[in-house]
Amino acid sequence: MTREARHDILFEPLAIGPVTLPNRFYQVPHCTGFGVTKPASQAAFRGMKAEGGWGAVCTEYCSISPSSDDEPYVSARLWDDEDVARLRLMTEAVHAHGALAGVELWHGGLGANARESRLPPLAPSQMANEHTPWVVAQAMTVADIEREQDAWVAAARRAVAAGFDIVYVYGSHSYLPAQFLSPLTNLRTDAYGGSFANRARFWLEAIERVREAVGERCAIAVRIAADSLAAAGVDPDEGAAFVRAADPLVDLWDAAVGAEAGEHRTDSGASRHFAQGYQIELTRWLRAATSKPMIGVGRYTDPDLMADHVRSGAIDVIGSARPSIADPFLPAKVRDGRYDEIRECIGCNQCYSRANYGRHIGCTQNATAGEEHRRGWHPERFAPAANADRDVLVVGAGPAGMECAIVLARRGFRRVHLVDAAPDVGGHVGWLARLPGLGDWARVVDWRRIQLRRLRRQIEVITNQPLDAATVRSYGAEIVVVATGSRWLTGGDPRLVAPESVADGLPAGAVAVLDGEGYLVGAACAEHALGLGRRVTYHSPFDRVAPFLDETLEGVLLRPRLATAGLALAPLPSSLADINADVIIDARGRRSDEALYHELCDDPGDLEAVYRVGDCAAPRMLADAIFDGHRLAREIDGPQPAVARVWLRG
Amino acid sequence: MTREARHDILFEPLAIGPVTLPNRFYQVPHCTGFGVTKPASQAAFRGMKAEGGWGAVCTEYCSISPSSDDEPYVSARLWDDEDVARLRLMTEAVHAHGALAGVELWHGGLGANARESRLPPLAPSQMANEHTPWVVAQAMTVADIEREQDAWVAAARRAVAAGFDIVYVYGSHSYLPAQFLSPLTNLRTDAYGGSFANRARFWLEAIERVREAVGERCAIAVRIAADSLAAAGVDPDEGAAFVRAADPLVDLWDAAVGAEAGEHRTDSGASRHFAQGYQIELTRWLRAATSKPMIGVGRYTDPDLMADHVRSGAIDVIGSARPSIADPFLPAKVRDGRYDEIRECIGCNQCYSRANYGRHIGCTQNATAGEEHRRGWHPERFAPAANADRDVLVVGAGPAGMECAIVLARRGFRRVHLVDAAPDVGGHVGWLARLPGLGDWARVVDWRRIQLRRLRRQIEVITNQPLDAATVRSYGAEIVVVATGSRWLTGGDPRLVAPESVADGLPAGAVAVLDGEGYLVGAACAEHALGLGRRVTYHSPFDRVAPFLDETLEGVLLRPRLATAGLALAPLPSSLADINADVIIDARGRRSDEALYHELCDDPGDLEAVYRVGDCAAPRMLADAIFDGHRLAREIDGPQPAVARVWLRG
Repeated sequence: MTREARHDILFEPLAIGPVTLPNRFYQVPHCTGFGVTKPASQAAFRGMKAEGGWGAVCTEYCSISPSSDDEPYVSARLWDDEDVARLRLMTEAVHAHGALAGVELWHGGLGANARESRLPPLAPSQMANEHTPWVVAQAMTVADIEREQDAWVAAARRAVAAGFDIVYVYGSHSYLPAQFLSPLTNLRTDAYGGSFANRARFWLEAIERVREAVGERCAIAVRIAADSLAAAGVDPDEGAAFVRAADPLVDLWDAAVGAEAGEHRTDSGASRHFAQGYQIELTRWLRAATSKPMIGVGRYTDPDLMADHVRSGAIDVIGSARPSIADPFLPAKVRDGRYDEIRECIGCNQCYSRANYGRHIGCTQNATAGEEHRRGWHPERFAPAANADRDVLVVGAGPAGMECAIVLARRGFRRVHLVDAAPDVGGHVGWLARLPGLGDWARVVDWRRIQLRRLRRQIEVITNQPLDAATVRSYGAEIVVVATGSRWLTGGDPRLVAPESVADGLPAGAVAVLDGEGYLVGAACAEHALGLGRRVTYHSPFDRVAPFLDETLEGVLLRPRLATAGLALAPLPSSLADINADVIIDARGRRSDEALYHELCDDPGDLEAVYRVGDCAAPRMLADAIFDGHRLAREIDGPQPAVARVWLRG
Repeated sequence: MTREARHDILFEPLAIGPVTLPNRFYQVPHCTGFGVTKPASQAAFRGMKAEGGWGAVCTEYCSISPSSDDEPYVSARLWDDEDVARLRLMTEAVHAHGALAGVELWHGGLGANARESRLPPLAPSQMANEHTPWVVAQAMTVADIEREQDAWVAAARRAVAAGFDIVYVYGSHSYLPAQFLSPLTNLRTDAYGGSFANRARFWLEAIERVREAVGERCAIAVRIAADSLAAAGVDPDEGAAFVRAADPLVDLWDAAVGAEAGEHRTDSGASRHFAQGYQIELTRWLRAATSKPMIGVGRYTDPDLMADHVRSGAIDVIGSARPSIADPFLPAKVRDGRYDEIRECIGCNQCYSRANYGRHIGCTQNATAGEEHRRGWHPERFAPAANADRDVLVVGAGPAGMECAIVLARRGFRRVHLVDAAPDVGGHVGWLARLPGLGDWARVVDWRRIQLRRLRRQIEVITNQPLDAATVRSYGAEIVVVATGSRWLTGGDPRLVAPESVADGLPAGAVAVLDGEGYLVGAACAEHALGLGRRVTYHSPFDRVAPFLDETLEGVLLRPRLATAGLALAPLPSSLADINADVIIDARGRRSDEALYHELCDDPGDLEAVYRVGDCAAPRMLADAIFDGHRLAREIDGPQPAVARVWLRG
């Protein structure tokens, strides 16, 4: 395969200040949970993207001083030489593949949680943190301002020592420089508050001082949240005036959107709410205000759209966080015309939830994300298996079974049989992706379906074929992997409907949704029923619809949408008889479909080994089910494949 | 001073299996946020308690295997040799002072969050985690059971290698062994489920196997939540039968209370809800069922009560978590009869909130808790200050000012002047501690008042003395510390009342409380008004009363109490005119009282230095305000005393 000529523009180098970006693929700063706490994981994770063709790879937010401590969240840090040594691992890994390394130097101001330091956050004026109102900032004195600017310069010098090529003076997402710019958070009456020129002073001085200190060695980048300046009370003319004032000092503008403040949740928009490339309209004003190279993001996975947006001049560089997690080799695949191998981000925001809530990044589409160091997994390379001569029967062609079969084939197994009772592969994603807002989730199946086709000489896919234990034992395979998934438990009332059938049609009448899981299914079923014009009540033990959706940034946008559509909230009654509805969608919980697995364990016949993966072992999030199928295939020739190998820490 | 003879019983050694507890003071397992992630902090923190006279010092919960990963919370771990090396730092620090070191070997089962491993938690039966229902356990096979018991044994051997003297087979608080015991979480039909004997099998086998493996080297301890077995469906006879069955294998029973499940929040009871020694009645049945030594906890700080409970035979050993944090030297002070130096726990549960939410323990009463390694602070020893010949004027005798003055004197300053405009020392704690449930918070002032008296030759305390900038400049001190605190902002409606005045009486009529902070004050004011028989409405931007109280375990108990008393919840209106009440208690937010500080900075006259501490810099939690006063005094002869020194990490 060869690359389409219309994509060539994505591979044109671009000078940014004193350094040159080798192509137009740029991994913008994004969280991982690694920071400087897990430096080897950090280095391997970022280095993998450089290997996959990203022209530049950045850290997450990187604190410049102890006055910007964000515990319990994990930021990177450049406070001292120890931090330099830890982040140097990353720059070396990135440079080894010819990419540039960037560091997002950050001061959170009022937004720093400061749970480790025990110091109050510093901010332009004294006010409470909106999200944690028991945290109130110390209003910065002029001495505080000078000291934190000194700290920014010192951190930039450490960044040079660590080998970074791009240094940020990060201001967007409502952090300290933006807090100075905003009249809502800057109530000062001195030279740093009041007029636009005064409110812009802190940020401009910081940029100027960092530029003076390291601008000959590094490109100076500024990340700015294009749409949230207005939400922060900075009128559009002022926003443009700020960009024009800073422009001579800046080598690269990184246009983000969204704010930490309020409900302004456009950043990292889930596919449930935003389409690919959605940020381009929000950043046009920035393009008009700058003559410097500009990065735009927006969950880009389509090379045509990327090339169009660069060719149009709307942006110069394709910024990426989530698509670079879902496929670290996206640029290399475009470069080589291997379009059908691109593993597209589904926009589920599991990455965000895991980097924050679990403090170790993961990805639904890419089971190896975050596992490069600790489990030694490469997304594109697979060690030959010692037992690759065996026949393997995978029972169940849902996401976990598909993933397992694909990885087995990549490890050299030549006779993998992937068998499912259903008429098509994909398992529960088949119905899930037909619920409102979840269409992009079908990419989980689409990508794997294509890989199964590419590996068809090694993997035989058989559908419409139920298997019982006796048939499995006599199938002819030495190794069996049971991947039969899970089912929503239901029963006890004739009005009950399982979530599996909702997308195929609902009986007439008013609908009640029972949600015991608190993640996506109950809420999606409710939205589906509302879309059919039904009266819908959501019954749960929670204080809000689907609490886990707050971890994926979906809740804050979905709940108003559901409320507007008329969703009524109610507690779970003690008896179903108390529910006044014609149809009850029962998403109270799932149980593993593990009978076949246990039958085979009890009587394996001549089978060499029986394993299970995915929801068949425990119903879980899609990311973890796919991970589990991947893991078994990676470790199937290990001493104890049924049990996950202990990972490296650090 | 000499010890009272009635306390001698607390210093009698006690044989527990193959080891001897040197006295009756035992630091039971409690969280820190250190685990094996910050091994030097762990060692210094635990070692300090051994130095302070605790006869045994334990780790927090310590995972036995990767199938019990509790991220995002921080547990200790004994998975491999690296963990052994890290925890050996702790046992060495503990042994250096003649104490025993204990390790609470733990498997969370269904309660393990498993955000790092990405594996499903293991449990007796498949069900969802009550708190995170999107996490569903894998039902353990018999092979899983054997493997995890093997892991318990392996972890116990590693504990021996790390130097521990006491090894736990931890079962309480709804973790794996208790999940097997409970018919609510154990639905098995095999040899590990059904009858009492079957449900008890997992735990008994684990105890037996650990005893066989290391029982000649270590004492075997079992921690059991005495009152929550019943809540978990284990009837009292069964609970006693379990203790009798295990008794021959157990050297030490550690009686806790409470459960993770449900609303059963008796563990770590805040002073708001429970009095000292409150657990003794809940554990009497355990005493009756065992012939082995037994530990009891209950926030003991009174040596009389401790001695009474040991003498009565109700317990043999005084277990302690929070009082040992508030005063690591409590046993040494009792031993030496230095009763007036005991710094009593106030039962605020900041320790719990910080170990969990911030992942680094801290304490309101003891500013050095958690700072032993990273800031090098010893709670009882203070390095002479290089500038101790200066006169220091501390303006404001609230908690931060008192703490600062005391530490300055301990560092050798001979002329410290502690001046307050109010008629008494203590600042805002004076009115705070008179609100319902907060009486024990007065200990913050009581202890410091006593220390000020002990240090009266170095600290001059002057009350009823307002100071303006000119007076401060001419006071005669070279160094000034401004500790003027903060005030609740109020104004704009004649019905408004500041929280400061609530304890002194409320105008007549219906009451509205505005809470913008979400911590203790708004809720306490509401409870106070309810206690006066008023109709009370609580207005806030929160979805529940005082959300931060969930971090301190107070919310789940306080909210039902307030609801029963008739508290009505409402949002914050856009205009105060919309509030239908005669009295409005305005706890929307505080502002620092920093005018004096800025006046002195602008014109310091001949002053050598002007600093500020506590709420005067930023209104914050009491623990952090006291910490800040302590910090300045520790660092007042450093290069930049106004700015916190960077701490050690690790």
